[in-house]
Amino acid sequence: MNPRYCVIMAGGIGSRFWPLSKNNYPKQFLDILGTGKSFIRSTFERFLPLVPAENFLVVTNAAYKQLVLQHLPELKDHQVLCEPMRRNTAPCIAYATYHILSQCPEASIAVTPADHLVTNEPEFHRIITQGLDFVESHNDALMTIGIKPSRPETGYGYIEVDQPREGIVPVASFKEKPDLETAKTFLAAGRYFWNSGIFIWSSHAIMSAFRQYLPDLVALFDQGKNLFGTPDEQDFINRQFEKCENISIDYGVMERSQSRYTIAADFGWSDIGTWGSLYTHARHDDSGNAVSGHAIPIDSQRCVVNIEPGYEAIVQGLDHCLVALRDHSLLVCRLDDEQQIKHWVEKL
Amino acid sequence: MNPRYCVIMAGGIGSRFWPLSKNNYPKQFLDILGTGKSFIRSTFERFLPLVPAENFLVVTNAAYKQLVLQHLPELKDHQVLCEPMRRNTAPCIAYATYHILSQCPEASIAVTPADHLVTNEPEFHRIITQGLDFVESHNDALMTIGIKPSRPETGYGYIEVDQPREGIVPVASFKEKPDLETAKTFLAAGRYFWNSGIFIWSSHAIMSAFRQYLPDLVALFDQGKNLFGTPDEQDFINRQFEKCENISIDYGVMERSQSRYTIAADFGWSDIGTWGSLYTHARHDDSGNAVSGHAIPIDSQRCVVNIEPGYEAIVQGLDHCLVALRDHSLLVCRLDDEQQIKHWVEKL
Repeated sequence: MNPRYCVIMAGGIGSRFWPLSKNNYPKQFLDILGTGKSFIRSTFERFLPLVPAENFLVVTNAAYKQLVLQHLPELKDHQVLCEPMRRNTAPCIAYATYHILSQCPEASIAVTPADHLVTNEPEFHRIITQGLDFVESHNDALMTIGIKPSRPETGYGYIEVDQPREGIVPVASFKEKPDLETAKTFLAAGRYFWNSGIFIWSSHAIMSAFRQYLPDLVALFDQGKNLFGTPDEQDFINRQFEKCENISIDYGVMERSQSRYTIAADFGWSDIGTWGSLYTHARHDDSGNAVSGHAIPIDSQRCVVNIEPGYEAIVQGLDHCLVALRDHSLLVCRLDDEQQIKHWVEKL
Repeated sequence: MNPRYCVIMAGGIGSRFWPLSKNNYPKQFLDILGTGKSFIRSTFERFLPLVPAENFLVVTNAAYKQLVLQHLPELKDHQVLCEPMRRNTAPCIAYATYHILSQCPEASIAVTPADHLVTNEPEFHRIITQGLDFVESHNDALMTIGIKPSRPETGYGYIEVDQPREGIVPVASFKEKPDLETAKTFLAAGRYFWNSGIFIWSSHAIMSAFRQYLPDLVALFDQGKNLFGTPDEQDFINRQFEKCENISIDYGVMERSQSRYTIAADFGWSDIGTWGSLYTHARHDDSGNAVSGHAIPIDSQRCVVNIEPGYEAIVQGLDHCLVALRDHSLLVCRLDDEQQIKHWVEKL
């Protein structure tokens, strides 16, 4: 069995959760659901039964390195890889892969976003283990974890398979975020799954795919091939990373590959990408309010109230609104309009 | 002409403006309207053309003494009289009167709350001067300033006169806060004025009235008559003040007096006692929002947004609501329900 690695992608800035997540404190470091753990901490602990602590890598922005080490004190300094700027997931994963190869010529790698929710960990472990086992016996396989959809969600991409079947199956195609009508047909068809952004493959498979589909990226990293895992790695990355194409692993590799697989999972997954999804997953009081922090809702229904520790709040007379106070910034808005948050913040 | 004194009553705790005003920072020290000056500072400056700085006294709670001196650096330490606890306006005024008499056997005294708004200062000066002149030539007169009502306000007490007449007229009676129907008849009748809580009298007149209507209060203070104005005054007050009856000057003196007068004034007065009155007097944007601090209203109308310096806020999708953030406390509520603020704060 190859050594197993886990790459946590933690470079996001999470502007959709303003003011909780800001550039200086993005979503992966927050405990938005009030579980007592940040998303990145939960992600780490979720993989820890499957991967030894020394085989984790976190790829993040240089600005967040210390935050990562605070949240994951089990990691050594060199396990946090620092991107000098954001270049989407393909360069991020390529960087991590080159780093792993400098330590270990043949590895099995699970790649995961840092900021997702999973509620059924035993099932998660079963699925990921199944995936790791599969890529170890299918040397070219690129696996993505599909999530059985529970609603016609328009906020996720979808994975299409030819026929609904348990276990690991080839991917027929990847679908962009659909409109509501399309999402409804996806849901009814039973052979479309949400794209979780979790990938599993061998180092061999992903490097083959990079060579085939993103040769420029490979050429860039190959220039410093011998520097990975040495004290000169960061310097090389700081010089080279900017030149990488800004491209996602989905678009750059998965959509082009002939040996891609998925498994339809059902382990209580959400990317908690919006306040609305937070509302769905948080605990509610009798009036349907999801309250975190020292806040009292009065005559208020279906609100999300998220108040920073050390503050107190009274929220009266609101229906399906968001009240979030963090880091000297306050947002009060209708939850139905939350997709505008980014624009409002720009006005500020 | 007697020396003229101004007594500023500044002991209030202003719980109706939570979270802006709290026990540790009550309304009189706030610049709620964003004029650049606190209420107490504005009150002081408003009387300064009429009374020399050394003839001001501020009566406040011991806890606020340093705040008073910060806001009114022109005052000497001994010009801030400290009540050890709240005992309403009659004991407050008695204390100030005894203190003045220790300095000056015959004085003219204007007594004013610390936290009111006046927009027409020249007219204010004309009215107060007229009052001071009057009490200096009418040695028993107790004057109260009436305000010509502009609406059927149910939040103020009223002063009734027998017939509407310009200038200084005898008071027929004092009326408690009326219900709306009564307030409408008051407004229509033209001989009812809002009770501003501003009083003018000679030291002789108010002491005579105290002796006649509140003899117990006089007996209490007489025990330390020779201590006022000495280093032992505070000690005496700390021992004695608790024993004073908790009674207002209106109820204890004005309603019982036979020599009470009023003048119907129109100098842009408001006690800004509620967020609603603040809304009325503040500047509005095109959507009718009164915004103070770094806050952006979006799709919001007729809101009061009051954000502490150093914070930023987005307020979206609200109609006629209050959003106030101060001192680690946040209040979001419907302006129409603001009379409940006190109860909500108790829940916190």
